[in-house]
Amino acid sequence: MNRIPVGVLGATGMVGQQYIALLRDHPWFEVRFVAASPRSAGKSYAEAVAGRWQLAQDYDAKVASLIVADANDVKAAAAAAARGDCAFVFSALEMGKDEIKALEEAYAAAGLPVVSNASAHRWTGDVPMLIPEINHHHADIIPVQRKSRGWDKGFIVVKPNCSIQCYMTPVHSLMEAGFEVRRMFVTTLQAVSGAGYPGVPSLDMIDNIVPFIGGEEEKSEKEPLKILGRIDGGLIENASGPLIAAHCNRVPVVNGHTACVSMEFGDRKPSVDEVRAVWKAFRALPQELGLPSAPLHPIIVREEADRPQPRKDRDADKGMAVTVGRVRPCPLFDLRFVGLSHNTVRGAAGGGILNAELLKAKGYL
Amino acid sequence: MNRIPVGVLGATGMVGQQYIALLRDHPWFEVRFVAASPRSAGKSYAEAVAGRWQLAQDYDAKVASLIVADANDVKAAAAAAARGDCAFVFSALEMGKDEIKALEEAYAAAGLPVVSNASAHRWTGDVPMLIPEINHHHADIIPVQRKSRGWDKGFIVVKPNCSIQCYMTPVHSLMEAGFEVRRMFVTTLQAVSGAGYPGVPSLDMIDNIVPFIGGEEEKSEKEPLKILGRIDGGLIENASGPLIAAHCNRVPVVNGHTACVSMEFGDRKPSVDEVRAVWKAFRALPQELGLPSAPLHPIIVREEADRPQPRKDRDADKGMAVTVGRVRPCPLFDLRFVGLSHNTVRGAAGGGILNAELLKAKGYL
Amino acid sequence: MNRIPVGVLGATGMVGQQYIALLRDHPWFEVRFVAASPRSAGKSYAEAVAGRWQLAQDYDAKVASLIVADANDVKAAAAAAARGDCAFVFSALEMGKDEIKALEEAYAAAGLPVVSNASAHRWTGDVPMLIPEINHHHADIIPVQRKSRGWDKGFIVVKPNCSIQCYMTPVHSLMEAGFEVRRMFVTTLQAVSGAGYPGVPSLDMIDNIVPFIGGEEEKSEKEPLKILGRIDGGLIENASGPLIAAHCNRVPVVNGHTACVSMEFGDRKPSVDEVRAVWKAFRALPQELGLPSAPLHPIIVREEADRPQPRKDRDADKGMAVTVGRVRPCPLFDLRFVGLSHNTVRGAAGGGILNAELLKAKGYL
Amino acid sequence: MNRIPVGVLGATGMVGQQYIALLRDHPWFEVRFVAASPRSAGKSYAEAVAGRWQLAQDYDAKVASLIVADANDVKAAAAAAARGDCAFVFSALEMGKDEIKALEEAYAAAGLPVVSNASAHRWTGDVPMLIPEINHHHADIIPVQRKSRGWDKGFIVVKPNCSIQCYMTPVHSLMEAGFEVRRMFVTTLQAVSGAGYPGVPSLDMIDNIVPFIGGEEEKSEKEPLKILGRIDGGLIENASGPLIAAHCNRVPVVNGHTACVSMEFGDRKPSVDEVRAVWKAFRALPQELGLPSAPLHPIIVREEADRPQPRKDRDADKGMAVTVGRVRPCPLFDLRFVGLSHNTVRGAAGGGILNAELLKAKGYL
Repeated sequence: MNRIPVGVLGATGMVGQQYIALLRDHPWFEVRFVAASPRSAGKSYAEAVAGRWQLAQDYDAKVASLIVADANDVKAAAAAAARGDCAFVFSALEMGKDEIKALEEAYAAAGLPVVSNASAHRWTGDVPMLIPEINHHHADIIPVQRKSRGWDKGFIVVKPNCSIQCYMTPVHSLMEAGFEVRRMFVTTLQAVSGAGYPGVPSLDMIDNIVPFIGGEEEKSEKEPLKILGRIDGGLIENASGPLIAAHCNRVPVVNGHTACVSMEFGDRKPSVDEVRAVWKAFRALPQELGLPSAPLHPIIVREEADRPQPRKDRDADKGMAVTVGRVRPCPLFDLRFVGLSHNTVRGAAGGGILNAELLKAKGYL
Repeated sequence: MNRIPVGVLGATGMVGQQYIALLRDHPWFEVRFVAASPRSAGKSYAEAVAGRWQLAQDYDAKVASLIVADANDVKAAAAAAARGDCAFVFSALEMGKDEIKALEEAYAAAGLPVVSNASAHRWTGDVPMLIPEINHHHADIIPVQRKSRGWDKGFIVVKPNCSIQCYMTPVHSLMEAGFEVRRMFVTTLQAVSGAGYPGVPSLDMIDNIVPFIGGEEEKSEKEPLKILGRIDGGLIENASGPLIAAHCNRVPVVNGHTACVSMEFGDRKPSVDEVRAVWKAFRALPQELGLPSAPLHPIIVREEADRPQPRKDRDADKGMAVTVGRVRPCPLFDLRFVGLSHNTVRGAAGGGILNAELLKAKGYL
Repeated sequence: MNRIPVGVLGATGMVGQQYIALLRDHPWFEVRFVAASPRSAGKSYAEAVAGRWQLAQDYDAKVASLIVADANDVKAAAAAAARGDCAFVFSALEMGKDEIKALEEAYAAAGLPVVSNASAHRWTGDVPMLIPEINHHHADIIPVQRKSRGWDKGFIVVKPNCSIQCYMTPVHSLMEAGFEVRRMFVTTLQAVSGAGYPGVPSLDMIDNIVPFIGGEEEKSEKEPLKILGRIDGGLIENASGPLIAAHCNRVPVVNGHTACVSMEFGDRKPSVDEVRAVWKAFRALPQELGLPSAPLHPIIVREEADRPQPRKDRDADKGMAVTVGRVRPCPLFDLRFVGLSHNTVRGAAGGGILNAELLKAKGYL
Repeated sequence: MNRIPVGVLGATGMVGQQYIALLRDHPWFEVRFVAASPRSAGKSYAEAVAGRWQLAQDYDAKVASLIVADANDVKAAAAAAARGDCAFVFSALEMGKDEIKALEEAYAAAGLPVVSNASAHRWTGDVPMLIPEINHHHADIIPVQRKSRGWDKGFIVVKPNCSIQCYMTPVHSLMEAGFEVRRMFVTTLQAVSGAGYPGVPSLDMIDNIVPFIGGEEEKSEKEPLKILGRIDGGLIENASGPLIAAHCNRVPVVNGHTACVSMEFGDRKPSVDEVRAVWKAFRALPQELGLPSAPLHPIIVREEADRPQPRKDRDADKGMAVTVGRVRPCPLFDLRFVGLSHNTVRGAAGGGILNAELLKAKGYL
């Protein structure tokens, strides 16, 4: 089968590397174009990541020999598109927010759909912030986006922050089952890979934790409202709830963000057993469509008293599932639980790839 | 000056070792009696802790040569008392709860006051659970306890769980300043030393966290109510609030428990600046009495965005201060902050020693 | 294809779990019998490992429902063999050395070949200690062993200590290429999984290393001599060299033993380039036979200045390859390098499985 | 007593911070001048280190309010010297080697003795590389250095690399006792603080070690020869031995470098007991002079099978002692042992301060 040629912007960074690794044997997509900072431009991909490659699995020989383009040079991508080497791009750009915003728009204007991992466009009104198990219907705004921007084939979709799904997929499934979640306390214990490489200094992570991650609490509190929002007048209108208070901590874990969550329900309150039943039964469009990266069970419920744990649960279902446990009553709100997901797979590159698979299945790619 | 001779029960365990270390140059107390399990009994202290001593600082030569008694043998302690080697005991016993309960009572009945670190008697109605900066007046129940038990000189006091002070000292100081705290969400990130030695396996703490500590959430939620309670009819009556929901996690940190806290106030709500001002100004009886182990400032307020951190803040003021930071509004409750204290110093042996100092100053020892 | 039914002794321990995981989809072998300590006996495998399962991947449903036998009860295995559920056993027994010795002999006497991971029989003269890439011909002693013991079908083979292959496979390949290695300094940095679960306490592995592992240096120095030995008069006669000095350290790594090695050659001394060429070209019988668990390249040479590293290289070729790097001159001996291999895969269960594959290919199973 | 006013160059870096901390209550020296990069210049010290202070103990209020000078501006230090605020400088400069070389010379030319921690001048022939317990007599080259350079009061002394003393102090003491050490294998396990802040990324130090530290093996092999050298013709002539092969590893430890060492002696070979006796008895000039930072016992011999360990032994005698253990025969050379010392105290700022104390006692400051 002919795979769709794709490009990766920011291909040498932490998330970019994860894209390269996850797309290695992808049944639908094939990396044929890579772009990064001017420092890497002109080198082979192998040269560009020498001494910086962070993953256990190696990149494949074909990608190794690709010449890295300058990500600022949209024409390079357009030329690759013209010669059939780049049907759309995954954006894992790492630069200033305004620069990313402008650059992703330039790619879209050049006819290249942008499936982005960056936060720059998360709050752009006509850009959907997708978690396919939750708000796949937000993709319906793409034609509006194209029209208002005057873009022919290009468009931009983004994914939310890397820890969101580990509590919002479970919460969404409950809301869908008729149990409104009004308020949530969320405390995260986040892995260092979320900060890229070199990222968090080891002096901060040996015999230590850091109870602060810049900008993370704001994202954790606000992004769920857009994800749960509805399309209205060509824009995505935020949902009014659940209201969230987040406290974000950095802990000495390589991969896997954990969240301790207390939920206050509306009038209809589920029992612990009902919650567990909803989670075990939950399936969504990616599962129905059989998207290649979709986890078989989007939510895995562990029975053990001390699970989920990052090292043991992050790789569940190729790192794409959310694992939950410790569902129990909360003395202040109604119920509490622990959620966990892989931040650079489900929370970054894997999530981006699932978004692209959804868009392909919906005919946008 | 002649120092008061004291005994340490459970002297070879983690907390027992910390007692030995902290009492090394104590101005009031001198370790002249050590007791531990039958396995250690009969050995010199140095032999008994060979290969198990966990602390950076060594024990002193005098303690090294003490012969370890069997902690189950109350007569040994009574004999030590008779020859002037043991005026009271610190209990760091590690055995079944019922055994500890009975054994501590036996020591008290034998005329030896017991300043305990164990949890066994925390819920005994006439046993005070002391944090000297919060509820030193609970010591007033000792005469009642002695009378009802028929004990002459002996009595039992306990200290609360090792993480309580890192949020309850700050909360108490606010309540004392007139700001009622009605409800609190507390998520702790706790050090492995809290589980003793060998304790938590390294396989659980490399590239991992464990979102569960057996019994810890219950203690964190309930003990504050006794500490804030009042003496009524010879018993300590629990306070009615604040209501607490606690989520306790084990993290790869040697020493220092961190808590992420959200507080809901009563009608009178302080501003961030008022909270910080109350905390900076807070002094209590231990400071007024100038107790040797009392921190100069019971609550240290850090200004940095990313503090407190365990490795950097746990040793503040000899490990006896509570360090707080990140005071800020909470989207759901009123205000939130991060608190931290040293779990084996302030939260265990150091806290026990401060309790003994308080009792000495109050004339009970 | 019908898979050969196999048993795992010590199936609930760390190495036992690794056997269960690695055999999950094995093309030749299928786990149909599990045995462990009396404590686990009678439970389903799932019950027996509840709260103790250490691996990221789960065991399969068939194994989950197997009833655990008492490993001390050889008759249980014999009965399983009789009903076609156990053609041979993998031994991952954890008990006293003499007990294991006697027990493994009892299994062999009962007609069950024992492919052992335990150290008990490593120094039994007629028991081969196999690394298939090095001394597959030692399997030829099996008929002698059977005959002298009076065993019909049963026999015992063992594998060496978990770090040996990371330096001995490279050294053997050089000796085979005509470069005698006379003396070696080896310093290991070993992962905590080598000590089982609970194993090394986290208090010893946070902000710390331990420069001592009981018995490990002796094994590291002596076992290579048997592996390189020759069969003479029904016994394996030790080789006279290379002489080895080993210093073994425990470091905070989950999996992957690293060794820093200096080699002194005989009269024929290879250049750095020759060493690298020998290692890159090295293939042995497992590769020629295409054994299912054999790595494609038994020795992988990394070019980067700072590789191999445990987290990045331990999983190379399913955790079965040895990764080497930093080949360079030694100021005292001739050349030095860093070697690394996965201690619970290649160094334990994976190595045991490869041994069984070799024995199957040779007709002994 | 009036303390000597001193300056610290590179005062905001990791080693500079350690100088500030260790000099806080120093009986002889008082920090009255601080200099750092242009980025910090003009700020108060407190502002300059905000968010970068790495140590558990805080700097004192006086230093907090010092205005940081530009370390490139020698005139600023000269002016401080003129007003009595800087009698000499500790150099903890972090810049290019040639820049440091020139800058330290400029300070010396301006009349300011430089007690340096930097490696730039370690191989300058007339600059002594001091470990006071080993080669205090190398300070005698200072008058020669001054004369040949035409410097009046200024001069430069350096200290060796941060791990050297943990094996060279033990080795020197044996040589002094008449046991020549001809060859040594040294494998180090080094703490991350040696790389400064941010230094080693946490992604390289969680569940990992790195078997490479740029330039470290060369320093470890060569610097001992200068330290053991003799002054000849106005230069320090290298000793001819011991020959050293070093393999240097980075491990997840905050502070404390560990070395595994095998020693080959000359004709006179000590027994294990003789080695231990020599080490226990070893005292040198710093101990005889009672220098404030000199450890009481320069070499501490631990008896336990598994010591020294970084977290437990690095702080021995204020972090200034070397701790050794595991003295035992070596199968290849004669004897082997494990040595450990604190890399940012004894191996950096503490070592520099001891050098200054020695120079003061010898009349050079």
